Amino acid sequence: MSSLNLKADDSHRIQVSQLDMPPRLLLGPGPSNFHPRVRQALSANEVGHLDPKFIEVMKETQELLRYVWQTSNPFTIPVSGTGSAAMEATLANCVEPGDVVLVGVNGYFGERLCDMAERYGAEVRRIQKPWGEVFTLNEIGYGLETHRPAILGLVHAETSTGALQPMDGIGKLCREFDTLLLLDTVTSLGGVPVFLDRWHVDMAYSGSQKCLSCPPGIAPLTLGPRALEKLSQRKTKPANWYLDMTLLGKYWGDERTYHHTAPINMNYALREALRIVAEEGLENRWDRHRTNAELLWEGLADLGIDCHVEREHRLASLTTALVPDGIDSKEVASHLLRNYNIDIAAGLGQLAGKVWRIGLMGYNSRPENVVLLLSAMKKALEALD
Amino acid sequence: MSSLNLKADDSHRIQVSQLDMPPRLLLGPGPSNFHPRVRQALSANEVGHLDPKFIEVMKETQELLRYVWQTSNPFTIPVSGTGSAAMEATLANCVEPGDVVLVGVNGYFGERLCDMAERYGAEVRRIQKPWGEVFTLNEIGYGLETHRPAILGLVHAETSTGALQPMDGIGKLCREFDTLLLLDTVTSLGGVPVFLDRWHVDMAYSGSQKCLSCPPGIAPLTLGPRALEKLSQRKTKPANWYLDMTLLGKYWGDERTYHHTAPINMNYALREALRIVAEEGLENRWDRHRTNAELLWEGLADLGIDCHVEREHRLASLTTALVPDGIDSKEVASHLLRNYNIDIAAGLGQLAGKVWRIGLMGYNSRPENVVLLLSAMKKALEALD
Repeated sequence: MSSLNLKADDSHRIQVSQLDMPPRLLLGPGPSNFHPRVRQALSANEVGHLDPKFIEVMKETQELLRYVWQTSNPFTIPVSGTGSAAMEATLANCVEPGDVVLVGVNGYFGERLCDMAERYGAEVRRIQKPWGEVFTLNEIGYGLETHRPAILGLVHAETSTGALQPMDGIGKLCREFDTLLLLDTVTSLGGVPVFLDRWHVDMAYSGSQKCLSCPPGIAPLTLGPRALEKLSQRKTKPANWYLDMTLLGKYWGDERTYHHTAPINMNYALREALRIVAEEGLENRWDRHRTNAELLWEGLADLGIDCHVEREHRLASLTTALVPDGIDSKEVASHLLRNYNIDIAAGLGQLAGKVWRIGLMGYNSRPENVVLLLSAMKKALEALD
Repeated sequence: MSSLNLKADDSHRIQVSQLDMPPRLLLGPGPSNFHPRVRQALSANEVGHLDPKFIEVMKETQELLRYVWQTSNPFTIPVSGTGSAAMEATLANCVEPGDVVLVGVNGYFGERLCDMAERYGAEVRRIQKPWGEVFTLNEIGYGLETHRPAILGLVHAETSTGALQPMDGIGKLCREFDTLLLLDTVTSLGGVPVFLDRWHVDMAYSGSQKCLSCPPGIAPLTLGPRALEKLSQRKTKPANWYLDMTLLGKYWGDERTYHHTAPINMNYALREALRIVAEEGLENRWDRHRTNAELLWEGLADLGIDCHVEREHRLASLTTALVPDGIDSKEVASHLLRNYNIDIAAGLGQLAGKVWRIGLMGYNSRPENVVLLLSAMKKALEALD
């Protein structure tokens, strides 16, 4: 049969059926469902990663990212990985061994920042708050004064707790201490107000699969002038080739030097997702997220379910709803998935068993989804009572 | 307008048109066009990364990867990035500072292995050959004896040169020297014979966008028992969180612990691409690639164009065609793109200006594409004469 006279072993040659995925409504902490127009863009004609038409797509995507993030940083790109890759890119590039990195830890993703920073040789210091609380400006000032860090890492919207960190005054304080401000905007970008430049944020990252309503697999990253300055003064190469922004900057910059093959079709999807944000307008989008979140909070209250985070610091895109006594949170989530194709998540870490995490993100932030979820939860609680 | 009383700056709020990408025929070194069934799978219903239905997709994808790679390694997964991320994952996990890593450098990707290994603290040694040649078993044996490396890195199919490294005897030799064998199969997997287990390969990686005919953005990785043993004996955490296979193993293993959000729809695409390979059968697929490559080589000869690599070591999936004297390789490539929507690439590094790189990969390895390309090249050469 083969002219090469080489016979393959068929023991792993399984026959699998045509893909048939259920129509899930993704109301957990992400991924959220993507917009129908994004689905269409995802399967547009593929081209090469140095094709002139692709370079247009790249430029448009960068500019739209600047709008959504409210920044003028020239270095604003999508990273070829998920949000965690963009998160790691900030640290891999801007931490040099021995740098003090101060992290505000009030949830799972603060912990992850610590883990990542350590891997790049940082001396990690922490300020901590219980999961679900936020830091005051005083607490941050005290932390900066005590630790004099090269970088302060904060999570704007903690996906594990549903708390929104107020940003007033933090960036200015960081400049006084000559500290770079690194901000996780994974669950805030495109859902709640983010003003990177007004807040003096030096580095930020996000995910595509939260409030931007795009599939996971591509992740926004931005580095401001002070971060680029630190990067340019590195004594050693970053201990990460794939995420080396000096190399990648040559592909995204005017040189267009090949680094790695960009995920072409994921770029199409992100461009379309951002285009939809620009059409709606950020203010309208923030309003919509807030309005639907309030609808959810009221409905939960009617079911006798409280929210974990106090109202003032509650995130519109992700709600942590307290599980009533005697209820198994995972059983309810699994009932919703099995019976109604609705995906919500249980708590993580300190909040395991204590909360459900309910996301109303991007395209999914619609009143009909709130009404459906509340009715389904009511039925689930009755059925499992 | 906004209840939040926050006004966004509209200076980056550009209006961009609906995405309208040209119908390129991708006959360069990758990405190649993807199969129509892969395009369909790419836009299937999205689900959560811990959804029971997604876990089925994960298992099927892993098993199909084992078939295509001809390995029984339990640790065989797609990495959430492009081929370069999977490449880096092998080194990030298996190199500890001070390890001697020997790399066979006969092209661009051998150089890249050196760069990456250095970033993880390896003491890098090289054996070198001109771009387009391959290593003999003797040369490799001499390298192992001289350098006694912990890891030997080789590129099976050098995308920059079109040479195919013969693998007979190398794996056995590596075992004698207690060396782990790392193999780049980016441009060979699914196009030319690859037998990881028979060859005693300990670590390998690939890309999705070459002979598998899937979009870029997800990348196969496999670690054999000896590589996992080395990983388990690390004294330090890998200096890379995103690609930490000990953490990722808990998501892909029975624990299903969240690490990062997998690129759901890219996984669908890869599963379909692999399913197509399993339907066709590896032997048929290898034959098809070989037959169409020979058709190309004959046609090029008819045009008076020679191949850079001697026939014995020529790669079926990627041909480096020598640019005739007096011809500007980039001008021809750009003529083909502009006039016929055909994408081929110019040479890289040592071969810049000297060759065109022509890929006939996966779905694109079809006689009609060969005939079209040859006619278009003839016309381009006439037009630019």
